[in-house]
Amino acid sequence: MENPVLDCLLNHRSIRRFTADPIDRETLGVITHAGTRAATAGNLQGYSLVVVDDQKTLEDWLPLKAAAAVIALVDTYRMKRWFELCDAPFHFDKPSSFLISFWDAIIALHNTVIAAESIGLGAVYIGGVISEDMGETIGAPEYTFPAGLVLLGHPDQNPPLRPRLPDEAVVHYDRYHVPTDDEVRAWYADIDRTFDEKSDEKRAALRAKGIHNRAQQITLGRYNEAIHSEMSTGIVDNLRKAGFTGFSG
Amino acid sequence: MENPVLDCLLNHRSIRRFTADPIDRETLGVITHAGTRAATAGNLQGYSLVVVDDQKTLEDWLPLKAAAAVIALVDTYRMKRWFELCDAPFHFDKPSSFLISFWDAIIALHNTVIAAESIGLGAVYIGGVISEDMGETIGAPEYTFPAGLVLLGHPDQNPPLRPRLPDEAVVHYDRYHVPTDDEVRAWYADIDRTFDEKSDEKRAALRAKGIHNRAQQITLGRYNEAIHSEMSTGIVDNLRKAGFTGFSG
Repeated sequence: MENPVLDCLLNHRSIRRFTADPIDRETLGVITHAGTRAATAGNLQGYSLVVVDDQKTLEDWLPLKAAAAVIALVDTYRMKRWFELCDAPFHFDKPSSFLISFWDAIIALHNTVIAAESIGLGAVYIGGVISEDMGETIGAPEYTFPAGLVLLGHPDQNPPLRPRLPDEAVVHYDRYHVPTDDEVRAWYADIDRTFDEKSDEKRAALRAKGIHNRAQQITLGRYNEAIHSEMSTGIVDNLRKAGFTGFSG
Repeated sequence: MENPVLDCLLNHRSIRRFTADPIDRETLGVITHAGTRAATAGNLQGYSLVVVDDQKTLEDWLPLKAAAAVIALVDTYRMKRWFELCDAPFHFDKPSSFLISFWDAIIALHNTVIAAESIGLGAVYIGGVISEDMGETIGAPEYTFPAGLVLLGHPDQNPPLRPRLPDEAVVHYDRYHVPTDDEVRAWYADIDRTFDEKSDEKRAALRAKGIHNRAQQITLGRYNEAIHSEMSTGIVDNLRKAGFTGFSG
C-alpha cells in the first residue's frame, strides 16, 4: 500500500536545524488553514493557533533558531465571549472541556505540521511549552492553555528515521496485551543496546553518576523526577491561572 | 499551493455511516504503523493503540456501526515495566507525563486517521471515551488512560465539508488577538443563523425549553453543565484509577 499521504506520514523526521530563510505569511496561512480543517468536537473549535515569525521574539524565548513557531492553545475563551453575547451560561472550564480542547488543539497543530512537511518544510514539536507562562509572551487570556508548540523552517539537515518500538509493542488487537518480562526485554533490546554502544569513556562518566543502562539514563537524567515535578508545577499553575478547575476530584 | 497531502487534509469529513464491509488486518496494520511514525516526546512512545474489530464487542459498546475502532491510550505502563527490569525509578505518573503522553497518543491516532482517509476509508472521532472505564472493556492496566477513540469503516455517506469559523478567528499572528464584541458577532454570524433557519415548529419547541439562540442550544442542551460535570467525574476517576496524580497542585 503506497500513496503520497502515507509517504509523508512514514517519512516524518523531526528537524532541529533550519536555514535562515523565512516562511512567507501566505504559506503560513495555507498550513494553518489545513489545521483548521481538522476534526473538532461539536464543531466548537476549542483552540487557537498563534503564529510567531518575528525573529527577535523567537530568539528571546526559543532554544533554537527557526523561521516560525506555531503555538496551539486550548481556547474556550473565544466561545465564552460568544456565549456572553448570547446570554448563554459558560461552563467550559472543567476537565472535560480542557481535555477535549487539548485534543482539538493538538490535531489542528498536527495537521499544520503535516501540511508543512508536505511542501518541504521541516518541523519539530517542543513539549515543554505546556508548563510555560504564555500570558506575557503572547498575551493569551483566561481559559487558554499552551497545548503544543511547533517550530517550522526550511530544513538544514536530513536526519535518518528514528527507530521506534516494534509495532507489536504499541499496537494491540482486541484487548490490551499485558506483556511478559521477556517480551518487554525483547521490545527494548535495541534501545538497551544504545547504552552498551557508547564509548568506554562516556559509559564510565555515566556510571560515576550511578547510571548503568539506558533506562536509568532516562529516569535519572534528562527525564528525572525533579524535572517532571517542576514541569508539573508549571502545568498546574497554568491551569489555575487560566481558570480550568476540577481535576482534583 | 496544492498537493495530495493538502487535498487529504482539506477534504476531511467525519464519516458516521459505514457499509458492512470489514477492514482487513493488513490494512489496519498499515494505518496504525503510520500512527507509530508520528513524532513522540523523548522517543519514548508513551501511548498504545488498541484496535478492536470484533463486531460483537463493537456492538456492545459503540453508539454506531463501524468496521473497527482504534483507541489511543496514554500509556506509561509499558515504560514502567521496562524501568523495573532495569532498576530505574518510575515517576511518569505526574501531569507532565500525562499531558505529554496524551499529546503523543493523539498525534499517533491522528496519523492513523489520515492514513485511513488516504486509502478511502472514513473515520469519526468519539470524544466521550476519555470519561469511560476502559479497564473492563479492553483490559487496560494502571498508568493508561483513554485519550481518544476513532471509528473506521468504508464510507456509506458523502457529507459536505462542515463550516468552520473564519481563519482570522482561530489563527493569530505575533500575539493572541483579544477580539472586540463586534468581531465575535461577525465570526459567529453564520452559526447564529443556523438557529434562525430552523422551522418555526422546532424553534418554538426550543423556546419552550428556554433556548433562544444557537449558543444557548449548545450550553443548555447537548453540552450542558450536567453533562460536562458527569464527564469530568469520569475523567477524574480514570486518572485516579490509572495512578496519575498531582493535578490538584
